[in-house]
Amino acid sequence: MANEKKLVESITSMEEDFAQWYTDVVKKAELTDYTSVKGCMVIKPAGYAIWENIQHELDRRFKETGVQNVYLPMFIPESLLQKEKDHVEGFAPEVAWVTHGGLEPLQERMCVRPTSETLFCDFYANDIHSYRDLPKVYNQWCSVVRWEKTTRPFLRSREFLWQEGHTAHATAEDAEARTVQMLNVYADFCEEVLAIPVIKGRKTDKEKFAGAEATYTIESLMHDGKALQSGTSHNFGDGFAKAFNIQFTDKDNTLKYVHQTSWGMTTRMIGAIIMVHGDNNGLVLPPRIAPVQVMVVPIQQKKEGVLEKASQVWETLAASGLRVRMDDSDKSPGWKFSEQEMRGIPVRIELGPKDIEAGQAVIVRRDTREKTVAALEELTEKVKEILETMQADMLEKARKHRDSHTYTAVTKEEFKDIADNKPGFIKAMWCGSQECEDAIKEEYGVTSRCIPFHQEQISDTCICCGKPASKMVYWGKAY
Amino acid sequence: MANEKKLVESITSMEEDFAQWYTDVVKKAELTDYTSVKGCMVIKPAGYAIWENIQHELDRRFKETGVQNVYLPMFIPESLLQKEKDHVEGFAPEVAWVTHGGLEPLQERMCVRPTSETLFCDFYANDIHSYRDLPKVYNQWCSVVRWEKTTRPFLRSREFLWQEGHTAHATAEDAEARTVQMLNVYADFCEEVLAIPVIKGRKTDKEKFAGAEATYTIESLMHDGKALQSGTSHNFGDGFAKAFNIQFTDKDNTLKYVHQTSWGMTTRMIGAIIMVHGDNNGLVLPPRIAPVQVMVVPIQQKKEGVLEKASQVWETLAASGLRVRMDDSDKSPGWKFSEQEMRGIPVRIELGPKDIEAGQAVIVRRDTREKTVAALEELTEKVKEILETMQADMLEKARKHRDSHTYTAVTKEEFKDIADNKPGFIKAMWCGSQECEDAIKEEYGVTSRCIPFHQEQISDTCICCGKPASKMVYWGKAY
Repeated sequence: MANEKKLVESITSMEEDFAQWYTDVVKKAELTDYTSVKGCMVIKPAGYAIWENIQHELDRRFKETGVQNVYLPMFIPESLLQKEKDHVEGFAPEVAWVTHGGLEPLQERMCVRPTSETLFCDFYANDIHSYRDLPKVYNQWCSVVRWEKTTRPFLRSREFLWQEGHTAHATAEDAEARTVQMLNVYADFCEEVLAIPVIKGRKTDKEKFAGAEATYTIESLMHDGKALQSGTSHNFGDGFAKAFNIQFTDKDNTLKYVHQTSWGMTTRMIGAIIMVHGDNNGLVLPPRIAPVQVMVVPIQQKKEGVLEKASQVWETLAASGLRVRMDDSDKSPGWKFSEQEMRGIPVRIELGPKDIEAGQAVIVRRDTREKTVAALEELTEKVKEILETMQADMLEKARKHRDSHTYTAVTKEEFKDIADNKPGFIKAMWCGSQECEDAIKEEYGVTSRCIPFHQEQISDTCICCGKPASKMVYWGKAY
Repeated sequence: MANEKKLVESITSMEEDFAQWYTDVVKKAELTDYTSVKGCMVIKPAGYAIWENIQHELDRRFKETGVQNVYLPMFIPESLLQKEKDHVEGFAPEVAWVTHGGLEPLQERMCVRPTSETLFCDFYANDIHSYRDLPKVYNQWCSVVRWEKTTRPFLRSREFLWQEGHTAHATAEDAEARTVQMLNVYADFCEEVLAIPVIKGRKTDKEKFAGAEATYTIESLMHDGKALQSGTSHNFGDGFAKAFNIQFTDKDNTLKYVHQTSWGMTTRMIGAIIMVHGDNNGLVLPPRIAPVQVMVVPIQQKKEGVLEKASQVWETLAASGLRVRMDDSDKSPGWKFSEQEMRGIPVRIELGPKDIEAGQAVIVRRDTREKTVAALEELTEKVKEILETMQADMLEKARKHRDSHTYTAVTKEEFKDIADNKPGFIKAMWCGSQECEDAIKEEYGVTSRCIPFHQEQISDTCICCGKPASKMVYWGKAY
C-alpha cells in the first residue's frame, strides 16, 4: 500500500505551491515531457488527444461560419516581415532565424513564423482582384515559434500549436463583424466545451496586437486568481492592406484596399483547463473535451465473471457513443482509481462481484467524487446524465470562483489592498491614458486585461489620475 | 462564348506536355499557389480539403491499429542529428539551419526537422524503461523541411506536410510486423480511397532510408509512365536504439535495446491523384476523397421554380450524407460545367425546366462524362450508385493502365528498348550488387523502384552482369 499511494503523494498541493502543483499535474497526468530542445516540449498522447478534441470542436464551429482551411509556408523572408512597421517591431525581437539552407548561406535570411499576417498579406495581394474574390475567410492549423526566455508547458513555450484565421473583406463593417463573430465563437467554445467562463472585451492600445487597429480578447481566471488571455481576435482595418498593397476593384469600378482580421487560439488552453478545473488529486477534464470520458474498473477482477461483465459494460457504453476505456491491468483498484483521477477522466465505474450479484454498478464523479449506484440496465443513461450534469456544474463552479475573485476598486487604497492581498480580477475606472496604465502596472504589479464589452460605471474618475473616466477596465496579474 | 472557353483552352494537353499539363491543372483547379518563399507553396482551400480527407481516412486507419498521436518539437539540435552516422549523412546536406533566436546567436545551431527519428529516439530514451512501456506506437502530423534545389507543387517542395509514425518494440519480430502492417495500411488506403493501385516491395540498400535496416515501399505509376514512391515504412532494427541508448528491462530482468520502425505518407499523394486520374479537362477526384462529390447546376435558373427545385435536390442529397454544392452563380451553365470538371468534382447534376416538368435530373460522371437520366425520387440512390461505380472503375482503369505499361525485359537490348521508348515499369532480374544497380541507372536512366513482395522468376540471370540472379526488380523513371 505504501507504494500505491505514491502517485498522489508526489503532487504538491495547490495551496502550498500552485506553480509546482501545475508542473506536477502536467507531468503525472502524462500530458507533456521535456526535450533536449530548450524551451520546447513533447506533447504526449494524453495531452495531444485533448488538443485533437479542441481542434475538432473549433474547426467544426469555424466551418459553420464559412471558414476554409489552407496552409502557408512556415518561413517568412526578412523583407516580408518588415513591410508593416508596428508588426516587425513587435515580433522581430522574438523570432528564430534560418540563415543556411543545406550547405549554403541564404541570400536573405528567413524567420520561422511567429504568426502569419505577412504571409497571408503577400498571398492575398496576388489572389484578390475583384469584389467577387471577397471575403476571404481562411484559417490554418500549424505550429509557430517565439523565442521566449522563460517557458512553461502549454502556457509559454518556444514552439506552440495553434490555429490562425486570416480574413479579407470589402468593407470596414464586414471586417469588424468578423472580428466580433470569431471572438464569440471562442467565448462560446470556452464556456460550452471547456466549461471556462470568460470576460469578453477589448485590449487597450498598449496591450493590442502589433499592427492591429483593435484587439478583442477573452480573459479567464485561473484557480490561483491569475488571469489568462484565452483567445484574441484582431481588426487590422486597412493598415496591412496599404503596406502590402492588397487592392480590389469594387462594384463601382474603383480600386479599394481590403479590410483584414486575424484570430487565434492555442495549446495554452490545455493549461487553462488544468488551472481552472484541476485539484489536489490531479487533472479534472470537462466531459465534452475529455479524450476518455469513462473508465471501467473491475473490482476483484480475478473472480469468475467479473471481467466478462466489465467488458460487457464497457462495450455497451462505447456502443452508445461514449469514449470509454477499461483498466484490467494487474494493478490494485486503489492504484487504478488514483490514476484515473490523476488523468482527469470524468467518471469511473466500479464493478465487483457484489455489484454484479445485485445487478448494479457504482458511478463515481471525478469532480465531486460523488458516488451513484445504478442498475446495470440503466447504466448508460445514468452515466450520460451524470456527464451532462458534471459539465454544467464545472462551468458553474468556475463562474462562482471567478465572480468571488472579482473585486471592485474605487480608491487607490482599495486597489492597492486588492492587488496585494486578493488574487483575482480588479474592476476599476480608467481615463484612457497610457501614462496611467503604465503607472498602475508599475505601482501595483497588475496589467489591464480588457475593457469589457459589458461596462459598469463604478465611479466617475480614473483610479490612477483622478480625472474623469468613462471606461471600466479589468486589471489583474496574468500568465 | 469565346470568353467561356478560356478555362479549358488554357490547359496544355497532357499528350503535348505532361509536365505543363500538371502545372496547369494544379493552378486552374486552384490547389496551390506560388509564394515569395522560394520553393514553398501555398496550399489553397481546394487542395487543403483533399489533404484533410487524406488525414481523416489515414488517421482513422492508424488508430484502429493502436496508433496514438503526439507532437514533438520542429527543431533538432545539431548534436542530436549527428548521433546516428548514416542518418546524418543522408539528411545534413538538405536541412535548413536556425542560427539565431531573437537577437542572440544560438550556442548550438538547430535544423528544422527533415524527419524526426532523432527526436523520437531522444524522447524514447527517457520514456522507455521496462517491457511494460512497450510497444510505443506514436505518430505525428506536421510539416517538414528539405532544402531541395528544384521544386514542383506537391511532388517536391522545400516544406511539405506529412505524417510520421515512430514505434519502439521489445523484439525484432514485433518491429518487422509493424513495418509490414503500416505498409499494408498505406497500400489499402491508396487502392480503396485514392483508387491508385500500388506495387508493394522492398527498396534496395542503395535506395533505402538513411539509417534503416530495411525500407518497404509502395510504388504507383503515373499517367505518363513515371513511377511515384507513394509511402514508405522502415525497419530500423536496433541501430538507432544503440546510437541513442534506448534500453528496457525485459521480463527476464535483462537490459535490452528496443527495435524501431518509422513510416510516412505526404502531400505528394495529391500529386499522385492528379497524375493518375486527371485528364485534359482537369482534375478527376475519386469520390471517396473528393471534398465535394456532387455539384448541382441549375439550367435556365432564372425561370420560375428552377432554383427552388435545385435547392431541394441539393438539400436532399446533402441530408443523405453526400458532400454536395450548388452553383447558382450568374455564370452560364457551360462555364459552370467547365469549372466543375476542372476541379474534378466526381458528379454533376443538371436540372432545368424541362427536367423538372418530367420529374427528372441528368447525372453526369466526371471520368467518363456518361449521362444518366434519373427520376427525382430515385436521385440520391442513383447518385450513390454512380459514385461507387466510378470509384471502382477509376481503380480498375488505373490498374489496366499500370499493367499495360509494365514490361518484362530478359535481355539488355529489350531493357534498353523499353527504357528508351516505352514509359512505364520494367520488370527484370538483378543479381543484388550495387555495381549493377549503378550501371543500370547510368546506362538506361532508370532506378530500382522496388523488389516486389510478389516475385516472378523472369529469367535466371542478372539483366546487367549476366550472373545468376534470384531477385526480380521493378525499374523505372521516377518523380
